[in-house]
Formats: sequence, C-alpha cells, structure tokens
Amino acid sequence: MELIRFADIIDNYKAFFFDSYGVLKNQNGAISGVIDVINALNVKQIPYKILTNDASRNREEQGSKFRDLGYTGIRDQDIITSGMMTTIFLKEQVKSGLIAYLGTSMAADYIHQAGHESIPIHDVHDDNEKDISALVFLDDEGYNWDFAINKCINLLRHVNIPVVVANPDRIYPTKGNEVRMAIGSIAYMVEKTVGKRFIYFGKPESQMFAHAFDEMKMIGIKSKTDVLMIGDTLETDIYGANRFGLQSMLVLSGNTSKSRYENRINSTGIIPDYVCAELNWNID
Amino acid sequence: MELIRFADIIDNYKAFFFDSYGVLKNQNGAISGVIDVINALNVKQIPYKILTNDASRNREEQGSKFRDLGYTGIRDQDIITSGMMTTIFLKEQVKSGLIAYLGTSMAADYIHQAGHESIPIHDVHDDNEKDISALVFLDDEGYNWDFAINKCINLLRHVNIPVVVANPDRIYPTKGNEVRMAIGSIAYMVEKTVGKRFIYFGKPESQMFAHAFDEMKMIGIKSKTDVLMIGDTLETDIYGANRFGLQSMLVLSGNTSKSRYENRINSTGIIPDYVCAELNWNID
Amino acid sequence: MELIRFADIIDNYKAFFFDSYGVLKNQNGAISGVIDVINALNVKQIPYKILTNDASRNREEQGSKFRDLGYTGIRDQDIITSGMMTTIFLKEQVKSGLIAYLGTSMAADYIHQAGHESIPIHDVHDDNEKDISALVFLDDEGYNWDFAINKCINLLRHVNIPVVVANPDRIYPTKGNEVRMAIGSIAYMVEKTVGKRFIYFGKPESQMFAHAFDEMKMIGIKSKTDVLMIGDTLETDIYGANRFGLQSMLVLSGNTSKSRYENRINSTGIIPDYVCAELNWNID
Amino acid sequence: MELIRFADIIDNYKAFFFDSYGVLKNQNGAISGVIDVINALNVKQIPYKILTNDASRNREEQGSKFRDLGYTGIRDQDIITSGMMTTIFLKEQVKSGLIAYLGTSMAADYIHQAGHESIPIHDVHDDNEKDISALVFLDDEGYNWDFAINKCINLLRHVNIPVVVANPDRIYPTKGNEVRMAIGSIAYMVEKTVGKRFIYFGKPESQMFAHAFDEMKMIGIKSKTDVLMIGDTLETDIYGANRFGLQSMLVLSGNTSKSRYENRINSTGIIPDYVCAELNWNID
Repeated sequence: MELIRFADIIDNYKAFFFDSYGVLKNQNGAISGVIDVINALNVKQIPYKILTNDASRNREEQGSKFRDLGYTGIRDQDIITSGMMTTIFLKEQVKSGLIAYLGTSMAADYIHQAGHESIPIHDVHDDNEKDISALVFLDDEGYNWDFAINKCINLLRHVNIPVVVANPDRIYPTKGNEVRMAIGSIAYMVEKTVGKRFIYFGKPESQMFAHAFDEMKMIGIKSKTDVLMIGDTLETDIYGANRFGLQSMLVLSGNTSKSRYENRINSTGIIPDYVCAELNWNID
Repeated sequence: MELIRFADIIDNYKAFFFDSYGVLKNQNGAISGVIDVINALNVKQIPYKILTNDASRNREEQGSKFRDLGYTGIRDQDIITSGMMTTIFLKEQVKSGLIAYLGTSMAADYIHQAGHESIPIHDVHDDNEKDISALVFLDDEGYNWDFAINKCINLLRHVNIPVVVANPDRIYPTKGNEVRMAIGSIAYMVEKTVGKRFIYFGKPESQMFAHAFDEMKMIGIKSKTDVLMIGDTLETDIYGANRFGLQSMLVLSGNTSKSRYENRINSTGIIPDYVCAELNWNID
Repeated sequence: MELIRFADIIDNYKAFFFDSYGVLKNQNGAISGVIDVINALNVKQIPYKILTNDASRNREEQGSKFRDLGYTGIRDQDIITSGMMTTIFLKEQVKSGLIAYLGTSMAADYIHQAGHESIPIHDVHDDNEKDISALVFLDDEGYNWDFAINKCINLLRHVNIPVVVANPDRIYPTKGNEVRMAIGSIAYMVEKTVGKRFIYFGKPESQMFAHAFDEMKMIGIKSKTDVLMIGDTLETDIYGANRFGLQSMLVLSGNTSKSRYENRINSTGIIPDYVCAELNWNID
Repeated sequence: MELIRFADIIDNYKAFFFDSYGVLKNQNGAISGVIDVINALNVKQIPYKILTNDASRNREEQGSKFRDLGYTGIRDQDIITSGMMTTIFLKEQVKSGLIAYLGTSMAADYIHQAGHESIPIHDVHDDNEKDISALVFLDDEGYNWDFAINKCINLLRHVNIPVVVANPDRIYPTKGNEVRMAIGSIAYMVEKTVGKRFIYFGKPESQMFAHAFDEMKMIGIKSKTDVLMIGDTLETDIYGANRFGLQSMLVLSGNTSKSRYENRINSTGIIPDYVCAELNWNID
C-alpha cells in the first residue's frame, strides 16, 4: 500500500475523527506538526472529534492536558472518551445503587456523572455486596491487583450484575519502549474466569463512533462517507472504523511502524483506506 | 427474576424492536397470540422494527413470508436484516470489483443492491482472484462446504481483501429439535485458520441496532430509553440491546425455556430488564 | 450415570492414583473415611500415588502435611506434584543461568532441586534480564501482582526464553466457599498478551500421569488398565486420565456435587468410568 | 539462533525421532539427502522413529509408501501415527459398540485394529444413534462436509460419548503452495459448537512421544536426553518435544523457511535446541 500525504486527501472529507495517543501526542508530548493540523482545522472550521479509550480521567481533564501540550484550539467537547460511554450506560441502564469500580478516584467521576454513587473495589465486602448494582473496570491504577481481582471474582459469584469495561485495550505504552497491562486485560481475565459476559466500550466497539457521528450529524454532517477516522492502531482505530462504516487512515506516528505496516495490514486483514507516514499540513 | 405480562409495561415505551425467529414465528408458523400484538401496535400506530440475523434472503422476501404467516400488517420497511448492513458496508467501503460470496443466489441480492457484481465462491479460481474485492459469508446453503471453505482459505492467502460475515449466528434450529451449523460458525473457523480479522454484522453487534434506531429517530423517537428490544436469545438479542444501550425483554417462546431462564441469566451474566413468558395482548 | 461403591470395584485394579484436594482433604482437614481407605491400601500393599497440581511447596512439605492430617501411611515418595515436573524440565531442558519465578521462596525449591539458581520476579531488572534463562509461574502468592505481571510482559518482550507454568489451575477454593485466582490464570493472561506459547505442567496435561505410571511400572504394574485415577474434578482429573489412557472414577466429595454431576458430565462430555458418592471402605 | 550442521550433533544422541512431511518427504517425493541420513542410521544401527499426525492410513500403508520413495530401510514398526494412539484409546477405554468416524474407509482401519466395528458418519441416523459408543475424527476426506458436520453436532446433542480427534493439525499443504483445512479444524469447530471436550492425539500432544519413547526404552535407550526430535514445524514438532521433555532440532526443509525462522522462534516463544538448514550426512 502506497503512502499518501494527508494534504492530498483532506478535501475529500468534511470532518475528521482522531485517535489521541500515537496520533496527537506520545510520551514526549505533542507529536511534531500535528498542532498545525489541528489549528488549520480550527481556522477552516472543519469539525473534528478526538476518540480515546482512555477512561482514567474525564474529558475536561483530558482537554486541559491537550491545551497544556499546545493544542490550544481543542475544546473539551471535541473529546469523546470510552469512559463517557460508560456514564451513558450507567445512566440509562442501571437504575440505582452503588457502582463498584477498579480505577483511581479520578476515574470514578464517570460514575458520578451518571448520577450514581461509587464505591472502590477495596471497600466492597460481604455486608455491602447486595447493594452493588454494577461493576466497572475503569483503569489499571489505584488499587492492589491481587485483592481487587479476587474480590471481583467472588463478587460476581455472589451477585448477578452488569459488568462494564470502560477501556478494552490490552496493553499500553509507558516510558522507554516499555508496556503495561491495560484494564482490558484484567477485565478479560476476570470474564473468562467467571464465565459471564461483560460489556466493553471503546474502540473497536461501535458505541463511541456512533456517539461521535451523532454529534457530527447535529452540526450538519450527513453521511458517514464525509468522515475520515485517523489512527495509529489497526486493531482499534482502523478495525473499529471499518465496522462502524467510516473510511480510515493509518498514520505511522505511533503503534504501527513504517517498516512493518505493510506486513501488519496483510497479516491482520485490517485494511485502511489510506496510509500516511505523518500528519502535517505540508502541501509541497 | 419474576415474570411480567407484556401488557403491564407496554405503556413505558414508544417503540419496539422484535427479534424474528422464536419471537414472531417458529418452525410451525406464527407464534400463537403474537399476530394480535403486532396488529395492536399497527392499530395504535406504535412504531416497531424487526431485527433479524437472517441474511439468506432479502427484506422483501422476508416481508412477504411474514404476511403469508398472517402478519398482514408487517411492511417490508419494518424489517432490518443483517444482510442489509452488509449491503451498506459494500456500498460505502468497497469501491469496485467482484464480490465473492458463500450462500444461495437469493442471498447474493444483498451484493447487487450495493451496486456490485457478485460471484459465487465456486466460480472463483486462480485467474480471477485478482478481481475479487471482498468476500462475504451470507448463508450456509447453496454450495459445497468442502470446496468453498478450502477455496476461502487459499483466496485469503493470495489476496488481502475485506471479509464480511452477514450472520454471526453459530447454529440455528431446523425441524424436530435438530440444529444446523450457521454461516457464522463457518466464517469463524476460516477466520481462526487464516488469522485475519473479519467484520461481523447482525446481533449482538451494534450496527443493526444503530440503523433501526436511526430510522426511529426520523419518525420522532428521540431517546434510546423509549425503545424496548424483545427477543428470545440472551447472547444476541439481549446482550446486543445492552451493549447498544436499549432496555430489553426476554420472551420465553423460543431459545430460552421457562425452566432454564433463571439459570441462564445467572450463568451468562446477560441480564434483561424484563422476562415475559409469552407475548400477547391480554390485560386481565 | 449410576453411583457405585468404591468397594465394589477395588478388586478390578492393581494400583490407584488420587487427586489431593477434594478427594483426600478439604479446607476442614482430612475427608471423613478416606484415611481408612489409604490405610487399607497400605495394609494390603496396594500401591498408589497422589497427583497434585499444587506447586506452592515441595513434596516433602506436602507429605508432612498429610501425616499431620492423620494420613500416617502416606510417604513423600507417594506424592507427585506438578512442581516436580517443572524441576525435571528445568534440569533436562535448561542448560544454565538464573531462573526467574513467581511464587513464594518455598515454591522456588522446585528450581533449586533442578540444580539452578532462582531469582524472584521482583529482583529482575534491566541489568540482569540477559542472565535469565527461563521464567516459571509457580504460585499466586509471594509477590505483588501488579509489579510482577508487568515485569513478566516486558521481560518476555526483551528476551526469548522458555516459560513454564507449574500449575495450570484457573481458580482454587479458599475458606468459606470463596475462591482465588490460581497461578494458571495469571500465566494464561500473560501468555495471551505476549503471544508466546508457554509450557503447562499438571493435570490435565499428561506429564504427571506419565511420571506416576513410570514409577508404577518399576514396581511391577504393567498395563494402564490396571490403574484407576480417582478425582473430584472433571476438567483436570478425569479429562487428564482419559487423555493419558487411564480409567477414572469421579468422587463427589469436592468440586462436583451430587446434585450436579450428571448435568456436568453431559455438558462437558468428560465421561468417567465410574461415579462414587464418597470414598470409603464399607462393604456392607 | 545460529544454524548448525546435523553431522556436528549426531554423536550427542543415541536415538532420533523424525517428523514425516517436510522432513523426510514433501509433495515432490523424498527430500534430497535425507534418504542418506536414514540409510546411515540403519547402517550404524542407531534407532529412530517417525512420528506423524497423518491418520488417513495405517502404519503399514505409510511404511510401504516410504519404501516406494526410496526409504528402503524404513520398517513399518519404525512409524508411529496419531491414528495408532486412537486405536489404543478405543481398545482400552471404549468397551463395546459401534464407532462412528469421519474419514475414508482406509482410515477406519484404526478402529478395526482396536477390535471395534466402524460406521461411517453418513450411515449414522436416528435409529442407530443409541448404538454409537464413540465418535472419531480421522481425516478430512471421504465424506460430505455439510452433512457430516451437522450430523456430528446433532449426534453429540443426543448421546454423550467420547470424541477422539486423531489428527490435531489445522491445515496441511497440498500441491502448488495451496493448503487444505485438516480434520483438526473441523473437529475444533464442532467442539466449540457443542461445548464438549474432545480428546486430541498427535503432536504437540504427549501421547505419541510417550509411546515412541516407551518403545525406545525397550531397546535400551534409558534417558529422554538421549533422544533428539527433528521436525519442520514449531507448533507441533518442537513444542511437543519441549512439553514431553525431549531436546529438539528445527529443520528448514518444510513449514519454516530460512528467511523467517528467527522471527518465528521469537514471536512464538517456541525454542528448539538447534536449527539446521537441511538434513544430510555431510561432514566436510
């Protein structure tokens, strides 16, 4: 698959969806040149949304972080997080009661925004188990894994409640080419062990794409063919876009390297519409 | 979980989604009492959609079959099939070329409706492989399994094309309590063998729910909480509704029996909002 | 499947293999009546072996624990642990170097018995990674899960070494009807994440059966048909015996209850030769 | 991993196990130079066994085929097939009754050698289902897949019998770089659909290694460290040897190519003791 320049295809679309990590930023900060792209979209009043599987903090905090990195034009409302899908689910599908969660207290904000009370998994015990009305996997930090995982298994053997995974990612990069198990892996292990079916939000699932596209429709974007999804990960960004019905562009600034992308596209069968080495606004 | 009467909750919703097989009909024809329910909805002008994973024939033929069974008020446009999602995908995401398929020539209509040419898997050979731009698993009938499955594996080793599964079901009931492997099982076996990621349409995936809800929005239904999904299968109807964000009712007229539903809800962790023994309009 | 009395079939076999937990003992100590059975075998000089997936401590400590419970006739050499299979593997297949492990220092004895040096996963860091020649999952206790799991993932991305799982169990019972994730679950999560193939020892794998049968051959038992495997778990004891070629008896004193065994045998397709409510020596 | 010459390590071992396809022969006949290796072993009276997952015909027919290819020294008794493991299982673990099978009538010989009567899956119907005492997946040829697969599913819903898979391979090469789904894939699909646990024989399972090693012990080979397994496939030959406790050598004459072996060893984590470009007897 040949590499294209982003500038060559911009005019084919009326709106853009961006992945966050590996596309707009990485462990060193904003990815070079991409601030210009976002600024140009703002100037030209081309709408965009940032779709992220990061459910460790709410959209406002993530927006503020983007602006700190130099993305001064990104507004909180341009950001859609998989945690927000969790909030909607809890609001519409869970009537009342305490929501138990794995994550930091910051992540628990997604529960409070649904109008529910949260309880960290560490505070769940035999006496209050009957009050728990859902279990949410939000983040891999903020608790002792040993205790929390074993508590989840026993909780789900005692009560039958919906279980929501706010971030389906299996691993994520940390500093210096290292990785860490993401909350999706922990949830998956618990799911296999208890044999119950969990509900996953975040790419490649469709809900976040649907939510973002609904917001686009409200500002006049009518057809899915008007929107391009831009991401660095085949299994989440590109596969998710394909399933939902959006065209997609793989950008080689993160998870998928220039030396391996052709091999990866071939072996996974996940085929983007375009591949672009780096996001920038250069036309010459 | 206690059984409720459908009549008791009808007024909480402004629209209904029905599964087809096991809810509206079974191998003996229309399920007793349900024709009255559909008629009543028609009389009261309460909108509904039928969501089916049957991609073996187009919506018009399925509509005609419903009317033959006595559902005289069901219009073609009330039916959403997973095959239709395939048509939309092929139209928007596949530019040109021949679409290879597994299924009867009747099922291939979903390809033609996308404006593409179809070619049965039996007619794919070394000379025309390069012209194939997608592979679609539509139905378990209409071809020799041995030949077709092996052709699919080799085709996908030669060319990298999108693969779509129009019906994710694993088995389906035939006459006399027997079952048959559905096309979803065949596709899954091929997917595991070639190691590429296929795109599945149909419940419990979200696309069909999203499509049906979009049509509801066009006639004034604003919120997901206004719609109830009614189905007989936890893993597809109820789990799909939960993921998409709809409330749901399990009806015990098909796949899930009265003696086992509590055990099944507990062991799968898939929890409907209501359980109803049979769909009818009785109020007393 | 009808229940039989153990006494009725004893004479059909010349040797017996017993599972440990759920058959000989449970959380309350020795299971009532079974000490008599073991004593009777000792008196009649009928050989037996205890096959256990417990790799948390060596055979000598497990033997001593049995004698504490009242099984005075059980000798250390009658016990075969999955940890011992690990020792043999490390001895024969790993030439030199440090063996990293997850487990208590007690479990590390299985590494030392292979003539290797052990290093707890917590002490593995960038500087000594190159000296690690194998990674062993021994037990779920003795380390911080968060740190250890993430260290394993990164270690296996840096060096390509054999990985051994000394206990394939997914969960195990603790007090009061609670369960805990066993080391097999943790290993399996890491295996799926790194995409490498691990080597599992313990039932239902064959190595422990082969080892125990080899020891039986040395004392004159010639044919597999002379040995009966007795266990309380279909998926490990009975399935393992079936695969290895031994006849088997399910005993309903542990994992599989009297009310559910028929259903479990039917749904798993794992079929013991006999089912026995409880192990005892009564002949009347 | 550096390539070694077979001649350099021969003297470290007292016996050899060979895979068949990809090591001794391929679609063009005997692999160049390997006949000399086998002849040399015969001359030097170094014992060897051929371990093959081919259960489509009995050991005598496979022996005769080897001799036709020029391996004049290979005796029938040097060949161990996964079909033979099936025969042993049926003999020792299935008391009586008809054995239903998928495969050609030639493959059914493995059933007859167990002293049982065979019935092709096509002849199984409602009236004789109760007489079936086991189901055996032998080969991918000799029957209509559509009929046979659906018959298996329904048979296993009606009766609870042991199911044996005589060849766990997922695909196998045919002429001109094409592949075909092997019986292991078909069995696996049926297993997932019915939810029952099947028993698999053949590499990488241990039974065939154990059987071959037992025969070696009878002629004086005492330790596993005296035997080298030689194969072209990491997932079966090498992983199987590792699990069973044999040292192993990957030979690059078949499934694993010279350009990819390092990458494959790294990504699978399946590590042979040696890698050899081609089997021959050259010393200079």
